[in-house]
Amino acid sequence: MTFDLAAYMAERARAVDQSLDRFLPSETASPESLHKAMRYSVLAGGKRLRPVLVAAGAEAVGGSLDAVMPAACAVEMIHTYSLIHDDLPAMDNDDFRRGVPTNHKVFGEAIAILAGDALLTLAFRLLGDSVAAGADAQRLREVFIEVADAAGSAGMVGGQVADIECEGRPADAALVDYIHTHKTAALIRASIRSGAILAGATPEELKALGVAGDDLGLAFQIMDDILDITATSEELGKTAGKDQAQQKATYPAVHGIETSRRRARALIADAHAALEPFGPRALPLRALGTFIIERKA
Amino acid sequence: MTFDLAAYMAERARAVDQSLDRFLPSETASPESLHKAMRYSVLAGGKRLRPVLVAAGAEAVGGSLDAVMPAACAVEMIHTYSLIHDDLPAMDNDDFRRGVPTNHKVFGEAIAILAGDALLTLAFRLLGDSVAAGADAQRLREVFIEVADAAGSAGMVGGQVADIECEGRPADAALVDYIHTHKTAALIRASIRSGAILAGATPEELKALGVAGDDLGLAFQIMDDILDITATSEELGKTAGKDQAQQKATYPAVHGIETSRRRARALIADAHAALEPFGPRALPLRALGTFIIERKA
Repeated sequence: MTFDLAAYMAERARAVDQSLDRFLPSETASPESLHKAMRYSVLAGGKRLRPVLVAAGAEAVGGSLDAVMPAACAVEMIHTYSLIHDDLPAMDNDDFRRGVPTNHKVFGEAIAILAGDALLTLAFRLLGDSVAAGADAQRLREVFIEVADAAGSAGMVGGQVADIECEGRPADAALVDYIHTHKTAALIRASIRSGAILAGATPEELKALGVAGDDLGLAFQIMDDILDITATSEELGKTAGKDQAQQKATYPAVHGIETSRRRARALIADAHAALEPFGPRALPLRALGTFIIERKA
Repeated sequence: MTFDLAAYMAERARAVDQSLDRFLPSETASPESLHKAMRYSVLAGGKRLRPVLVAAGAEAVGGSLDAVMPAACAVEMIHTYSLIHDDLPAMDNDDFRRGVPTNHKVFGEAIAILAGDALLTLAFRLLGDSVAAGADAQRLREVFIEVADAAGSAGMVGGQVADIECEGRPADAALVDYIHTHKTAALIRASIRSGAILAGATPEELKALGVAGDDLGLAFQIMDDILDITATSEELGKTAGKDQAQQKATYPAVHGIETSRRRARALIADAHAALEPFGPRALPLRALGTFIIERKA
């Protein structure tokens, strides 16, 4: 059975882009500088991987993107806020992201911090809008726990803390796993599962999607580490080679590039196995797994 | 009819403190530095005005603090995150808050930014827990909209942007009103209304509580401006006299102290009138209004 992933991703990313544009405050609404800064980073593009995963998670259990659009846009806003804050001088101090200057380079540090805060806040407002698409209170609560735990101190934010605190120190395998599973994999896993929760997944289905989500998330970050070494800044839309320059804890730094690549492939094989019971409904998720290890940027 | 506000506030603040302690991640859980930073600023104290207002809002329509405790702790976490971020060097650059050094002075800028992010995230996770206390999906959605709109780019964050952008520029009455209603009054209004929404308020009740919330919120910030001039740093637990030093847009700077005081009193009189129909159930809210204009710190 063939599946045209490029067309699938393009179509869903376009729908997500349109909704993001609609959900974001207008640039002409006060305070203009803040709203410009919010729109600048969200609409700078990117692959929209996380919203597409929300859609694919919903579809794996018989749902559709339309019904989970607020949640899909919410995770993209959470992802974008994390990039804005991570790029700040007090953190990774990056000048370049998604092919354009970072938020604080354009709008200043204060507005960049506040734009991140406002995007995180808006994300949770949008999640609440899942009610309009038919979610009941219990499902809504589960989605809040799913996303907040993945994004919070025991998830993405916690991973960023570990990432910053270990800079320049010798990295070991356990630490790199901790950083990658928290900083990146947690939100990727939550994206898939949130779509599925809102679409009415059973506990067994959620468990299997959790396994696949962990696999896809870790594989994604391993490939990100590899691409930081093998790709150009132009291909990545951000400064290549920064991990090594900042002595970041990465998979290739600990395991070497070839072992890292093998590990990513093994993770995707495991994800494909976990998705087997879903049959053709999980074709998009399976193809996204393959995309993650074959992508060039 | 007498009402012992001091006892009321002390009792509810104690219950809120216990719940905050329970809802916050343990200092021994990884990443420890982040969790220490989160606990440091939340548990440094403060009047717990916003959580007490959530309780009073619920009680005004026949509810109780117990049933709205997650929401009460959520608004306190949102308030605390905003203080942590506002105090950063890129913003107001404050060294002293709630009687102790500011978060970034103790934990560094990166951890302070991330602790704020994690508190905001945890706040929305807690709001979702209102389901356990019996909130249905529609009420939950309304509370999310109420709190997120008050905290986001068209509310508190927007007010902070205006506050920063007008520093050192001549302030006018309209601008000061904009800053105060957005930066402070919005979350105070949302605190009262959130408690009421979760306790099953009617649209008419919510409307009246919105009027009272706007009044209390603006009066609170006017008194805050006045106290910045008339109180000592020791009384305030933060650096007194900073507004004038930083040429902030304040009520006394535009209207003078006496006119500002009269305006605060008129606002509380208006709030009391709006609360009249609630009868004895609104005694706590009425007393809190009086407290706001009579407080010394």
